Amino acid sequence: MPTRRSRFASPGRGWAQVGADLIRMAESVSDTAHHGAPLPHGLPGDVLDEVDSALGPRVIPSAGVGESQALARLGDLVARHGLDLTHTRTAAHLQPPPLTVAVVADALAGATNASLDTYDSGPATLAIEQWMIAALADLAGLGAGAGGVFGPGGSYSNLLALLIARDHAASALGLDTRTDGTGALPRPVVFCSRIAHFSIHRACAALGLGESAVVGIDVDDDHRMLPAALESALAAAGDRTPVAVVATAGTTDFGTVDPLPEIAAIARRRGVWLHVDAAYGFGSLFSDRLAGLVEGIDRADSITLDLHKIGWQPAAASVLLLADSGRFAAVDRSVSYLNPTDDIEAGYGGLLGQTLQTTRRPDVLKVAATFLAYGRLGLGSMLDRCHELARHAEQRIATEPHLELIAPVTLTTVVFRYRCADLDAVNAELRRRLIRSGAALIGRTRVVTAGADRPQVCLKLTLLNPEAHEADIDALFDDIIRVALEVEAENTRALSTDADALEASHEH
Amino acid sequence: MPTRRSRFASPGRGWAQVGADLIRMAESVSDTAHHGAPLPHGLPGDVLDEVDSALGPRVIPSAGVGESQALARLGDLVARHGLDLTHTRTAAHLQPPPLTVAVVADALAGATNASLDTYDSGPATLAIEQWMIAALADLAGLGAGAGGVFGPGGSYSNLLALLIARDHAASALGLDTRTDGTGALPRPVVFCSRIAHFSIHRACAALGLGESAVVGIDVDDDHRMLPAALESALAAAGDRTPVAVVATAGTTDFGTVDPLPEIAAIARRRGVWLHVDAAYGFGSLFSDRLAGLVEGIDRADSITLDLHKIGWQPAAASVLLLADSGRFAAVDRSVSYLNPTDDIEAGYGGLLGQTLQTTRRPDVLKVAATFLAYGRLGLGSMLDRCHELARHAEQRIATEPHLELIAPVTLTTVVFRYRCADLDAVNAELRRRLIRSGAALIGRTRVVTAGADRPQVCLKLTLLNPEAHEADIDALFDDIIRVALEVEAENTRALSTDADALEASHEH
Repeated sequence: MPTRRSRFASPGRGWAQVGADLIRMAESVSDTAHHGAPLPHGLPGDVLDEVDSALGPRVIPSAGVGESQALARLGDLVARHGLDLTHTRTAAHLQPPPLTVAVVADALAGATNASLDTYDSGPATLAIEQWMIAALADLAGLGAGAGGVFGPGGSYSNLLALLIARDHAASALGLDTRTDGTGALPRPVVFCSRIAHFSIHRACAALGLGESAVVGIDVDDDHRMLPAALESALAAAGDRTPVAVVATAGTTDFGTVDPLPEIAAIARRRGVWLHVDAAYGFGSLFSDRLAGLVEGIDRADSITLDLHKIGWQPAAASVLLLADSGRFAAVDRSVSYLNPTDDIEAGYGGLLGQTLQTTRRPDVLKVAATFLAYGRLGLGSMLDRCHELARHAEQRIATEPHLELIAPVTLTTVVFRYRCADLDAVNAELRRRLIRSGAALIGRTRVVTAGADRPQVCLKLTLLNPEAHEADIDALFDDIIRVALEVEAENTRALSTDADALEASHEH
Repeated sequence: MPTRRSRFASPGRGWAQVGADLIRMAESVSDTAHHGAPLPHGLPGDVLDEVDSALGPRVIPSAGVGESQALARLGDLVARHGLDLTHTRTAAHLQPPPLTVAVVADALAGATNASLDTYDSGPATLAIEQWMIAALADLAGLGAGAGGVFGPGGSYSNLLALLIARDHAASALGLDTRTDGTGALPRPVVFCSRIAHFSIHRACAALGLGESAVVGIDVDDDHRMLPAALESALAAAGDRTPVAVVATAGTTDFGTVDPLPEIAAIARRRGVWLHVDAAYGFGSLFSDRLAGLVEGIDRADSITLDLHKIGWQPAAASVLLLADSGRFAAVDRSVSYLNPTDDIEAGYGGLLGQTLQTTRRPDVLKVAATFLAYGRLGLGSMLDRCHELARHAEQRIATEPHLELIAPVTLTTVVFRYRCADLDAVNAELRRRLIRSGAALIGRTRVVTAGADRPQVCLKLTLLNPEAHEADIDALFDDIIRVALEVEAENTRALSTDADALEASHEH
């Protein structure tokens, strides 16, 4: 350990320095700086401009202002113009308040700057990732041959899964997509429900399969994939190449889970790769009460899970699990400066061959710290609490004539809307106004509701703060209804003014 | 801000809590725990097993041990079995010791858990990223229409660049690869030097172009792409579809920079996308002394730069710059729950449309903190110092009859080898032995040296610690030569024992 003052974070003493600097930064941000709301109030353009102006000309300064001043300035900007995920009226996205223990362990990851590509880029974290992957595979019910890898997000994990499935499907036809590209693959097709995450389409575009490879399977009234529709689609695929069936365990809007046992049986019978996108829903397994939701997940060939959703990690803590770790061969590479054969034989391997990344931050440290600190049941009880809050919100909506529940609660989201004449405009505007005022942060989406022929704007709460109370949810709805009434009244006045103006113009 | 004790990190007070926990963790790790070496000594298998055993059975525990104990246990494992990048005999990879100011700002990023996909997932960091991208584009000399995005690593930035180039090339032919896949693209081809980073091949495989799309262009004796060879290859491409020319600014082994002005002129004349992989070399722009190395980078269509290399950031801090931000359209998506049109028109947009990620950690915070703290010239002087150390190493090799310099220093790497009979075996083994003993951590690679017909094992120093001294480099070489002599002696004895055994067997 260096005895003189160093600019660098070093193992051991360096962690204390990071801590001391964080405390100093927190102290330098005045108590009045934080807006005390989910978001800063004001129009987005104005808020972004304020930050931009505070940073000055858009050039890298030649000389610096020193560590303390730089940190104080950024700490202040984030406090004044940032997001507060711990606020009890923040309920928009699958972006949880982060556990302090995870943030601390993630700072440790930063301070070591270990990477997971080779043994000598960070031995300790290499072993910790392998341990954590085995433990997560065990929780998923995968067998002894399972493997997995951490990555920078659920969209990336889905892409990696489809890449591996693509090359596996090609290989079964005697084709080598890795070398020859997807051109030779006869009309590839990926099956997923119509409300699967858009990252499936995005991945197909990236992987050279094209978005037209995606066949959207119909869902039932509970927003779950219809196994019979999947069966028909597979039968209708004819001479196309089925790359994968993607089942969703926890849709972004409804938290609904496709019927995994039935889908797994169909995929197995047809010999098609089954990927389960459990970015949101995997965390059900932490809770004894909710684990049954993802029954059948153990039959997947690959699983995406995001611990920066249910798991309360700072982004990112995404994992791709494979039932057969041998399938990582599709992305394996031998690189003379990283993993030459003689080094691997001598035990100096790494995890370069399981991902598209080279340098890879040890996101596992925060996850391991969290599981060690709270255990599975500790996280399970946080999920149960959020689920209870969602159920409370559902009940409140049921008692509120102004509001309409769009889907029953499965996990921690509640989709609803304000009942009025001009549904889309009023619901969208009331959400923007809540954000603008800083009073509350809620989500929105579009749903084809019963009787409608096109998707309509709905509102959404994503409840991931287990420290919130029922009273906070009630206060949030009070805010929503208050602002909705305002917006509706203005909307009606504007419409009647328009009508008057139209009438007046006709008089001429 | 919550007044009661919360498990979550919240803006303002939460940062102090993270700091306090880090200090407590540092204090809980005993002074004797840290191995005081670049790496723990021992065989890799033994080191990894020790960590695995310390973590216990490979299952997620039902109950937790609490935050403090969890952090103390992980802090101890990382200290005992981790890597020390601040050690003056750590010189293997493009993985720098991380600046404390960056680690602290990154902890702030974790504590806010902001994401860059939408306005309401983190307004402050959205504006900070836009500011930083503009400043980096300015430094690169790109015009006013430039844009860019942070991502999880250089391999990812290269993949994103080639994806955008692929769809751009297809579009010029009236094809829509995003929808229809790469199948219709007539025999795509990507040109790069024979020693370009392997992530180019890996990206081509991922993108459905296939690794056979890569045409490796010959390099000159200084390991730089030969413009005439590129010209011929383009001419020979015939009816193939040129997707991109990839020039490398800072090869991993030699730090060499392809002749950017000549390559840019050829690419422009042929109308082919020019991507510059400046993951390593971009940092030259921080130094008035070395900036000339990347002259011509301003003519790129896209640039990859990794501030977790020259930039001293904890991983990852990679950026993809585009000369024309409009080209991001290839990855843009409209998603009803994130960026509906009416919200975008009202200013509630985000950066979802510039990347393949959805949730995206604000890596920009640490980068902004670093530039504000040290300024461009502060980083430039760190690079100059590492460059001087590399030059010192080069001179030491020149005076050392046991050693052979393989390439002159360009940036901060030095490639050399120990002269002996059994070159590959002795050089590879001496490196492993240095690691095993914990004495030093150096890199290796394979190079086709003058007069050789196949690549041979060479050793490499990657010098990224500006706080190291010339004396440290000398001590490192003393270690290398001491161990080399040992290995060579054992190797000779083993060979002669084998010869004796062979002779003895012949006598029968």
